[in-house]
Amino acid sequence: MTDLLMALGEAIGATHVLVDRADVARYEMDGRQPGGRALAVLRPASSAEVSAILRLAAQHGVTVVPQGARTGLVGAGVADDRGDALILSLERLTRAPEVDAVNRTVSADAGVLLSTINDAAGAYDLFFPIDLGADPSVGGMVGANTGGARFLRYGDVRSNLLGLEVVLADGKGTVLELGGALWKNNVGLDLKQLFTGASGSLGVITRATLALQPKPAAQVTALVALRRPDAALELLSLLEARFGTLLTAFEGMSAPAFDAALAHVLRLQHPFAGATPPYAVLVELSSGPVLSEDALEEALGEALAEIMERADSPVLDVAVDRRDALWAIRHAIPEGLRASGQVVACDIALRRGDVMRFRAEALAEIGARWPGLGVHDFGHIGDGGLHFNMVWPRANGSLDPAVADAVRDHVFAKAVEQFGGSFSAEHGIGPRNIRQYARFVPEAVRDLSGKIQNLVAPQRVGRVDFGSINTQEGSQNVG
Amino acid sequence: MTDLLMALGEAIGATHVLVDRADVARYEMDGRQPGGRALAVLRPASSAEVSAILRLAAQHGVTVVPQGARTGLVGAGVADDRGDALILSLERLTRAPEVDAVNRTVSADAGVLLSTINDAAGAYDLFFPIDLGADPSVGGMVGANTGGARFLRYGDVRSNLLGLEVVLADGKGTVLELGGALWKNNVGLDLKQLFTGASGSLGVITRATLALQPKPAAQVTALVALRRPDAALELLSLLEARFGTLLTAFEGMSAPAFDAALAHVLRLQHPFAGATPPYAVLVELSSGPVLSEDALEEALGEALAEIMERADSPVLDVAVDRRDALWAIRHAIPEGLRASGQVVACDIALRRGDVMRFRAEALAEIGARWPGLGVHDFGHIGDGGLHFNMVWPRANGSLDPAVADAVRDHVFAKAVEQFGGSFSAEHGIGPRNIRQYARFVPEAVRDLSGKIQNLVAPQRVGRVDFGSINTQEGSQNVG
Repeated sequence: MTDLLMALGEAIGATHVLVDRADVARYEMDGRQPGGRALAVLRPASSAEVSAILRLAAQHGVTVVPQGARTGLVGAGVADDRGDALILSLERLTRAPEVDAVNRTVSADAGVLLSTINDAAGAYDLFFPIDLGADPSVGGMVGANTGGARFLRYGDVRSNLLGLEVVLADGKGTVLELGGALWKNNVGLDLKQLFTGASGSLGVITRATLALQPKPAAQVTALVALRRPDAALELLSLLEARFGTLLTAFEGMSAPAFDAALAHVLRLQHPFAGATPPYAVLVELSSGPVLSEDALEEALGEALAEIMERADSPVLDVAVDRRDALWAIRHAIPEGLRASGQVVACDIALRRGDVMRFRAEALAEIGARWPGLGVHDFGHIGDGGLHFNMVWPRANGSLDPAVADAVRDHVFAKAVEQFGGSFSAEHGIGPRNIRQYARFVPEAVRDLSGKIQNLVAPQRVGRVDFGSINTQEGSQNVG
Repeated sequence: MTDLLMALGEAIGATHVLVDRADVARYEMDGRQPGGRALAVLRPASSAEVSAILRLAAQHGVTVVPQGARTGLVGAGVADDRGDALILSLERLTRAPEVDAVNRTVSADAGVLLSTINDAAGAYDLFFPIDLGADPSVGGMVGANTGGARFLRYGDVRSNLLGLEVVLADGKGTVLELGGALWKNNVGLDLKQLFTGASGSLGVITRATLALQPKPAAQVTALVALRRPDAALELLSLLEARFGTLLTAFEGMSAPAFDAALAHVLRLQHPFAGATPPYAVLVELSSGPVLSEDALEEALGEALAEIMERADSPVLDVAVDRRDALWAIRHAIPEGLRASGQVVACDIALRRGDVMRFRAEALAEIGARWPGLGVHDFGHIGDGGLHFNMVWPRANGSLDPAVADAVRDHVFAKAVEQFGGSFSAEHGIGPRNIRQYARFVPEAVRDLSGKIQNLVAPQRVGRVDFGSINTQEGSQNVG
């Protein structure tokens, strides 16, 4: 290994090959929990250096794990427990993003953060429309194909991705340019799609060109307190029909998730004077200057008033905001849940019409089978994405990992087998959910995926074996 | 061959194996021109029958060419000249599309037409937002990854595709379900992306689930007559900033394209009283009922008035419409061009900021090198897509195919090599442009694409060899 580390030092500079435990430790944690132990952390400064690393690693038969801003939630960007993998941090690939304002695109190195993209785009009244609680890197966003809270209007990273530079784990470190800065470009197999959402396990993403959108001049949010959760779907259809492309978010919050955010995040104010409704929906309308915020607010108020005036109105109350106060509640939920106890998280997706029926059934089943475990779900009801998260309160002591596994297994099986849903809506695949991948993705799909992975990345890169039927891997990390 | 045809008859019914020249002929022509000759046409009625066909064809080593509604423009869905290929028409896979209104999705067999999808979705005030002059089938749209005139707002087929059923050309006719009716679903390699835009050459698409959008209640179009073509880009940025997601189309038309449509399509009226401007832009705004058509028209009028009042205003005149009169001019251009003479078509894409500079340079070069050839370009300026089409007037006699090839070579080389553009924006790859594929797609990308194709489709399916470096294939069809 000393030979390899020496050669790596020569390739990228010895100061960028970290081997001291004190230096390496901060690269062994992602957005959810600690990962395993790395042999070393490599910090290349260019795609040429990434290529050199992959060549050297291939010669020595060592696994390379690409890593972005460590905001991932499935463990795809951290090492395993064997201690023999190299973490390839893209954090030094951070040249200033290049905005093409007329084309509405930005080209950025893999290590550039989402917030930096938006700062650069903002100078031209543009933005990258992937709205996330975290601040991931460009490479990480593409590798996870992140979705977020404005997916309803703008889609995921994949649908906003025009070009990609990747370094192949083919033993030669081939650098491929896939696509470019063109909105329309159909010239054969669109290979960049293979690397998008592949958890860094098909190659190393070093640069991307992303589509930008005009920044809305006017934005109004309303938090709608509902008497019955299932009224959310009716409200969604109604607002979509009425506002069309002006509707940019439709987020749901269960009462326990709502209360957890307010109880644990001190800066927040209760929008309903302490009376938490059974279910709340955050609605956002966005517009160019053709509509003022006054006009948007009035139009939203009129639409909601029509529902509220009905004899059987499901709307209890409405709070309206033009800044970030209501979004702050929504974004505080994960922190509120962590402060409430141990979180058992399930990032699922369902057909939109199934979300509320799924919730009702799953709530009853979990209440009956695991009393003491609270369901604090929230999510992107507008796109069927549901963070069906549960909390085991601190007062109950620590949660048996086997019970946490059983709970997750139950929720995922219900979502996938009973509802045709997904066990990973927007967090992607990593060692923490590879067991579910092996369980629910059909064998024919895994088989073909594994063959493609072997073809594209014969050298081991990343943490995921897409052909895997080994349900044991990574189970030590689940929880 | 008789054995094969007999076995195929047993598998799908003898009446659905067409061998008579009179029956077969209509399957040998696509949206642009005649293709080659087929051994037979097969008309299966289900994915199980498609699977049986692929198994039998593999046993006999015969090429299968999937075919949709024959609206393609690159020859990907018709046979070659050897006469030994089987055309697999999907025209009988046409069960009624299933609309899920709450989920805003539709599931449809490959043979269902775009217009049928929109009829079914329209009953719920929804629509599939791919706007095309032609009426392709679902399978064809996915295979070509069509874009069209509202790409600016809604993207291409790929970004509106949630699920796919494909039959693999793996010798076994394996049927794969990829994705489903979920908006968010990140569970490993997204294999459906490989089949999207693959021209039917990676497998046979038999069914798809597509995302639908709320049908706009209000829609206003304006045709803006510009003094200078390059003012179109300024107008685009201005309208995007002002109208945000309400801007649903931004189409450009050169004066010759405009005149050709009006001269040859009798139902059309000249919107500018006979004074054709140097360049015209069709702008469309769409909205839910939150804005009336009066309000939309007023807002558009105000925005345009601000430009027209400027001392150096590039706007000569504006015609406004709430129905289809202005769109009819835009959609009549291809017919107008065909009626004017022999069309030399180049479906290119550029960065939006480059479109007008490219036009100006290419116009000058073509005028100097090929006098007599008129440039009648038009296209989707809002997404950088340009139908850089040229017309050789009938009065000049017939155009030497070698000259047509030289013209196309010049235009494509200029777009790709000088401007970083695309030689196929939205028509995809087929035998008619495979020569350009071999010329402009980097060898490393073709090499990997060919390997993936061999892995996924070891049995020959479709017309495109993505690993091809043979620049001769299909050149007989160019023109």
